[in-house]
Amino acid sequence: MNNTRLTLRVDFGSRRSIGPGKIRLLEEIGRGGSISQAGRSLGMSYRRAWLLIDDLNRAFRRAVVRAKSGGSQGGGAVLTEFGSGLVRDYRAIETAAADAAKSRLRRLEAELRNSGRLNPDSPPRKTSIRGGKR
Amino acid sequence: MNNTRLTLRVDFGSRRSIGPGKIRLLEEIGRGGSISQAGRSLGMSYRRAWLLIDDLNRAFRRAVVRAKSGGSQGGGAVLTEFGSGLVRDYRAIETAAADAAKSRLRRLEAELRNSGRLNPDSPPRKTSIRGGKR
Repeated sequence: MNNTRLTLRVDFGSRRSIGPGKIRLLEEIGRGGSISQAGRSLGMSYRRAWLLIDDLNRAFRRAVVRAKSGGSQGGGAVLTEFGSGLVRDYRAIETAAADAAKSRLRRLEAELRNSGRLNPDSPPRKTSIRGGKR
Repeated sequence: MNNTRLTLRVDFGSRRSIGPGKIRLLEEIGRGGSISQAGRSLGMSYRRAWLLIDDLNRAFRRAVVRAKSGGSQGGGAVLTEFGSGLVRDYRAIETAAADAAKSRLRRLEAELRNSGRLNPDSPPRKTSIRGGKR
């Protein structure tokens, strides 16, 4: 499915959600063992990264990230088992959704304009909506 | 699945996408026959609504919205057949994705904290990440 990508956001009611940003952050923490490093590698401030993790830790009964044992200063952060499971679940939902959507997405891809986007100054299309009533 | 909602965004490469905002806008245009009215009902400016539609009209080989026949002033805007199909496809992908995700989402829902979020001033959790290394 070449460049086409499906992204999911799950809202649990109006105040709790998981989406690509939080999941990528969890994955980076799992890789690097540090919230600040994970934030940096995604171009977000420590504060922003911390808030996203805090949000997740408050959303679920079990924490997704905790301070690494070894003292309050030296330890960094680790993904909990529940946090790893959350990432796996999200990625699995994403894969299932992409599979379910595949044939429809292929049809939409076939409808994409190929040349127009390469030239942003291409002339306006015949079917203009400029005349539409304001 | 009570309050849980899955939202999809489809990116075709880095420059073209469809997501909930554009789809809702198309649905409103289909209902009301006017870009400005559709924008208003979604709390967006005419300019913003127009740009989103223009974006879609440029993304695909066929237009999604066109000026209603009957003159450049009086006609409003209509969803094309392709535009209606796009909405249907998106909604069908959403349904298929939600079906595919259902059991995993149920498990995640069971992990949500029920009481904590009702009291934003609840005491901090035992598993704090505050001690994490910066």
